[in-house]
Amino acid sequence: MTDDLARLSLNTATTKRWTLREAVDGAARAGLPAVGLWRDRVAEAGLETAAKTVRDAGLRVSSLCRGGFLTAADPAGAQAALDDNRAAIVEAATVGTDALILVVGGLPDGSRDLAGARARVADRLAELAPFAREHGVRLVLEPLHPMYVADRAVVSTLEQALDLAAPHPADAVAVVVDTFHVFWDPNLADSVARAGREHRIAAYQVCDFNLPIAADALLSRGMMGDGVIDFTPITRAITATGYTGDVEVEIFNADIWSTPGDEVLPTMTARYRQLVLPHLGG
Amino acid sequence: MTDDLARLSLNTATTKRWTLREAVDGAARAGLPAVGLWRDRVAEAGLETAAKTVRDAGLRVSSLCRGGFLTAADPAGAQAALDDNRAAIVEAATVGTDALILVVGGLPDGSRDLAGARARVADRLAELAPFAREHGVRLVLEPLHPMYVADRAVVSTLEQALDLAAPHPADAVAVVVDTFHVFWDPNLADSVARAGREHRIAAYQVCDFNLPIAADALLSRGMMGDGVIDFTPITRAITATGYTGDVEVEIFNADIWSTPGDEVLPTMTARYRQLVLPHLGG
Repeated sequence: MTDDLARLSLNTATTKRWTLREAVDGAARAGLPAVGLWRDRVAEAGLETAAKTVRDAGLRVSSLCRGGFLTAADPAGAQAALDDNRAAIVEAATVGTDALILVVGGLPDGSRDLAGARARVADRLAELAPFAREHGVRLVLEPLHPMYVADRAVVSTLEQALDLAAPHPADAVAVVVDTFHVFWDPNLADSVARAGREHRIAAYQVCDFNLPIAADALLSRGMMGDGVIDFTPITRAITATGYTGDVEVEIFNADIWSTPGDEVLPTMTARYRQLVLPHLGG
Repeated sequence: MTDDLARLSLNTATTKRWTLREAVDGAARAGLPAVGLWRDRVAEAGLETAAKTVRDAGLRVSSLCRGGFLTAADPAGAQAALDDNRAAIVEAATVGTDALILVVGGLPDGSRDLAGARARVADRLAELAPFAREHGVRLVLEPLHPMYVADRAVVSTLEQALDLAAPHPADAVAVVVDTFHVFWDPNLADSVARAGREHRIAAYQVCDFNLPIAADALLSRGMMGDGVIDFTPITRAITATGYTGDVEVEIFNADIWSTPGDEVLPTMTARYRQLVLPHLGG
């Protein structure tokens, strides 16, 4: 590991075709100290094996992706979501991260009631927060870009995520700042500062916003420098809060997924050094 | 005109293939009292002819679309934008509307500086506002959905539009609330109420947000009822401000454009009666 990569983490979604072991080995080869894990790859490897694989490679787990999907309106759907999130909390603790990223979910099928869905998120966070805290895991709310409000996440802004977190201790409910989702927000600087004051920044994820929007809108995430995001003001705002945690690169992008991981990682580290690292302070 | 359509306006973009005269005649046949005009169709008809065509049909012009594109970073681009907006102000006055809708523009080619672009919008509004006011026309800021922040409009929320309008008299700079662009906003109710208190609501535009997002993201607008928007809370919030102006239907949608206008309008009026009108009060 080289010192200037001391905070860079590979979210395994970026190298989607790699197994967990391949991603851990690839990250280590590239000199990275950390990985962000997805639950499907953890399940595939087996939970204890996944934890050991990362530990044996000398890496940290910066986050586990993801819990959430808390908006079901029917009791069975609600119960299933609570059960799944409790399982995810245990998984996060087992793989050695205190950050369980939550994508809160969109509107239930046929519903258009955003206010109702948002209220259910608040209710279910309240049910999960004590369990998370007991396990030393934070529920990390991820505001998603407003284009996903109906089908992925009824939480669209950092301010809204902080309002949802507010009733809970900061070691139980926190937020992740993902450049793709929030770069457009005219209140971003204020919201990041507030998140810092409230000790809620659990993770910082970077990737670019590519145009035109991909045919599958989920895949519009791009390598830093390939899209329209200026990483300077966002990263400086994060740094100004005193955040010293990992910087995860999480990219869903068909072209990157079809590129061998060992070609993606040098590009990723180079762009990180060029566009993000100079603004991380320290 | 039937009384329950007394506030319904056809934005001519909805029936894109119709000439201005065809749209005016179609709106009149459907019992509508008003049309929202696009400048290209006005230019095609000739400005004075366009004005006379609408007047002779006994219709109002609810708005003129559109000015804006104020973000150029080079002096020539800035001057061209100011000239074009002054022309648009004169056109609005001539066709008989006090509402010139502004799409403020995205990032200049190669730029990623949102803050700079937003500052230029503020500067150019200040240059245009007195001219608009002299002509009895309001510059009507349209916050666009955040997915267009880089390429269409660096103004993404109603709050941000109101902040930009704040230095100017309400009869010079106002806002339009377009359901497609703002329905996701967790602060929408507060922002609509503020817009009402500040006497800035110049127009209310309705259409739905279709999923999946269209391959051309600009064409994801849908007929009310076909997408994910609940028109009840938004319309009630607008009504609560005391807004009594027109309700424009503006839809960019390839399927609707390929449907004959005389089939689109009955659907549009039926959906308006079903989903919007019950919440307009009065």
